[in-house]
Amino acid sequence: MTNTHIAPRAAAAPVGRLSREAAESLTDQIVRTVAARIDERELRSGSRMPSIRRFADSHGVSPFTVVAAYDKLVARGYLESRRGAGFFIRERAPIVGAVPVPSVPEPAGQSLDVVWLVRNMFRQMPHQQMPGTGVLPGEWLDGDSVANALRSIGRQNASLLLNYGVPQGFLPLRQQLQRKLAELEIGATPEQIVTTAGVTQGLDMVAREFTRPGDTILVDDPAWFLMFGSFAALGARVVGVPRLPDGPDLARLAELAALHKPKLYVINSVLHNPTSTSLSAAKAYQVLRIAAEHDITIVEDDIYCDLHPGSAVQPATRLAALDQLQRVIYLSGFSKTMAANLRVGFIATSPELARRLADRKMLQTLTTSDIGERVVYKILSEGAYRKHAERMRTRLDGLRSRTVRQLERVGLRVDVAPPAGMFVWADAGCDTNVLAERAMGQAHGPGILLAPGSLFSPSQLPSTFMRLNVAAMQDPAIWRFLEKELREKEAGALSKSS
Amino acid sequence: MTNTHIAPRAAAAPVGRLSREAAESLTDQIVRTVAARIDERELRSGSRMPSIRRFADSHGVSPFTVVAAYDKLVARGYLESRRGAGFFIRERAPIVGAVPVPSVPEPAGQSLDVVWLVRNMFRQMPHQQMPGTGVLPGEWLDGDSVANALRSIGRQNASLLLNYGVPQGFLPLRQQLQRKLAELEIGATPEQIVTTAGVTQGLDMVAREFTRPGDTILVDDPAWFLMFGSFAALGARVVGVPRLPDGPDLARLAELAALHKPKLYVINSVLHNPTSTSLSAAKAYQVLRIAAEHDITIVEDDIYCDLHPGSAVQPATRLAALDQLQRVIYLSGFSKTMAANLRVGFIATSPELARRLADRKMLQTLTTSDIGERVVYKILSEGAYRKHAERMRTRLDGLRSRTVRQLERVGLRVDVAPPAGMFVWADAGCDTNVLAERAMGQAHGPGILLAPGSLFSPSQLPSTFMRLNVAAMQDPAIWRFLEKELREKEAGALSKSS
Repeated sequence: MTNTHIAPRAAAAPVGRLSREAAESLTDQIVRTVAARIDERELRSGSRMPSIRRFADSHGVSPFTVVAAYDKLVARGYLESRRGAGFFIRERAPIVGAVPVPSVPEPAGQSLDVVWLVRNMFRQMPHQQMPGTGVLPGEWLDGDSVANALRSIGRQNASLLLNYGVPQGFLPLRQQLQRKLAELEIGATPEQIVTTAGVTQGLDMVAREFTRPGDTILVDDPAWFLMFGSFAALGARVVGVPRLPDGPDLARLAELAALHKPKLYVINSVLHNPTSTSLSAAKAYQVLRIAAEHDITIVEDDIYCDLHPGSAVQPATRLAALDQLQRVIYLSGFSKTMAANLRVGFIATSPELARRLADRKMLQTLTTSDIGERVVYKILSEGAYRKHAERMRTRLDGLRSRTVRQLERVGLRVDVAPPAGMFVWADAGCDTNVLAERAMGQAHGPGILLAPGSLFSPSQLPSTFMRLNVAAMQDPAIWRFLEKELREKEAGALSKSS
Repeated sequence: MTNTHIAPRAAAAPVGRLSREAAESLTDQIVRTVAARIDERELRSGSRMPSIRRFADSHGVSPFTVVAAYDKLVARGYLESRRGAGFFIRERAPIVGAVPVPSVPEPAGQSLDVVWLVRNMFRQMPHQQMPGTGVLPGEWLDGDSVANALRSIGRQNASLLLNYGVPQGFLPLRQQLQRKLAELEIGATPEQIVTTAGVTQGLDMVAREFTRPGDTILVDDPAWFLMFGSFAALGARVVGVPRLPDGPDLARLAELAALHKPKLYVINSVLHNPTSTSLSAAKAYQVLRIAAEHDITIVEDDIYCDLHPGSAVQPATRLAALDQLQRVIYLSGFSKTMAANLRVGFIATSPELARRLADRKMLQTLTTSDIGERVVYKILSEGAYRKHAERMRTRLDGLRSRTVRQLERVGLRVDVAPPAGMFVWADAGCDTNVLAERAMGQAHGPGILLAPGSLFSPSQLPSTFMRLNVAAMQDPAIWRFLEKELREKEAGALSKSS
């Protein structure tokens, strides 16, 4: 019996017994079995499948089940439908097998740079092994609210989902953001708000609006590293202003402003990344004064807003609250506290610039997805978000002081223990580039992702500092690694000095 | 009795009778009534609301209902919660009332430009009055599939939704796209595919990767207008190659290539926007030859892919199928045929460039939203999408020939009646800028949005052509307008010649 004999017979009854008791639906059973027989070449390409009716009769299932199964097989490239002639087994185009995303991080080697770190952050590693990450563990976030909101949007009038959204962003969300901003004492009408795909896109849009290649953008040093790469890609020069515990070094800010005539100064006023410290009121006022003198537009990135307990509890001065969006462009979003995946951020600015940015957004991406914006609107307007944010803060408060003590015990120094936020900026007393490479490449167990201080400086010079996420330090392997490394270092220093 | 007397009493029993029979939930009844009384200042700011327990008892509802209502009132800025002290009526920050999006289009005036047209396209006008639109009416799309997919994603493990996606895009979707491309004879592994927020973002990313200010990008003339603005915003010079019914004017293409040394040539091979014509095989080959000679990278925008019945039925040659992603970067997406709002598109290119673009995407927007990508994956893999696309094509086929006949009857000329697609490129015999302004500003009834030919040319010169969407021409007002205008024009011409 040759293969050519098997094919027609097999095609006549391509599937064995189907079970109504199985967890798998009848449709999926058919799909799986037919696909397997095609893969194993028991069903030959070019041969005709039985008609819907005949298949249904011979297997005792409804024609609808067969139609659904055949459709899925067409979608997966196993069958093709020839109009009027029925379904045929496809000559499958050579498809290279699906290559899974490697679960081990890439070796850093000499390419330890911003892109390397960010790429590794997106690897699907268990959260416990990523003290260098900038996000909270998934189970800290309010997955149920997001899932509920998605289901509820799925139940709405479907046509809402089909058209392009409004380029400026979903209006009810912008109205809700107006209220949120009002509580921060920032007055902004919905016309002054433009939604973005996270703060990252907002920064990119603003930088493109304000700078041409060769222009200077001031950032804090240290600061969020991704924007260095983003601004450099636009041809901008990125110059760092030393950040002190209460804000930038004002003398240096004034000097650099006079020297470089920067177009923009990007700053986290509240819960600065990576130190989790906030701007003092006095410095906020001086920053605005210097910006006015040198005609610098300030970009206030307030992504950690909801991790701060509020200015009634702890001091926090927002530049936009002082300046009321004249010289300050305010950015924030929900990637840190609701769900990164929604990619919902926003810009609040003057009405005229909001309009220009909405036009620019059209040119860059047409619109942002309404869906994420509807989810955020629903969660914000239903009131559970406040409590959720408060729970996150309480939980972080509990971990933060414990983590700082533990860090000091294993030999790191924390000069400024922040009163809020998820980051601690710790001094390891050795080059943290080397430490990060050893953490990633350690022989036993999976790698540990650290965020070395060099990344947070626009100069990228080696640093003894690193950023640690207090919510991602639970794995004992992290502590074992730190203890071992820092003890060895100390031993090395001792042996050298002896 | 003064107001100050009313406040405390009112706060003690802030809501009248609640109804369990009402369609509105008890929670929402409380929210609505309390909010109204605060708005009308019957409940005064600063006064304390009754405790949860007391409110629940006095109104005969469960404490959970009251908690939910108070939470919503906090979220809406009516109440504030003071830890340990209860809920208080807020001193409301002066919030400017929500300004609705104007439902009438903006006057065109002298600013008839790309941004003007696009802005008006996003106004929420009934589809029938937008023959200039580039999308199909919402009811043509498969809203049920999108809504089903959203609900089903909302039922999945919530933690999936919380983290950032993979910057290159949701892997199962990229695997599905590999199969889709294989059917078009384009070989691409998932590593060669990067998802984008629609083709618009894909074009922006590619242009940023390949050009510096002053570089030239070739486009077809006419072509999709939004990219002119997008490229100009990058400082690129946008130069048009005359597009003939079977592809570009090759002699001009070679001349312009030699003259401008362009970095990129962006082309719709299949169902070119705005003419709905496709590239012939012979021209496709010559385009690649010229591109190789002058070292031009080709960007093949195949957004209308699924509106074409397939090359077995009608000729259609894709440059990427000939070149296999060596010199050709292939872009497509699902905004036209699934739902614009999902903002899911993709780039297929060489493995090395895919990696560079994924890094660039990180710098621009970190990641695209997983949610839209999961929706598209679900719809593509379940097989109903093919039939849906076929239904759309059949429906367009029916309308297209009828529309062409009707256009000719009212005095427009259609030189090349396209065999597929949604657009007809028609010659009105008069300046269509003028026609578009008159259509938008007509005295009776709402405006009609036309897409005048000038927009589709990088030179922006006045044109007698315009793009009409055959799916958006059903409103008799459109035909009355065209008939009247073109008759007047003819009468004017006659009176001039007499």
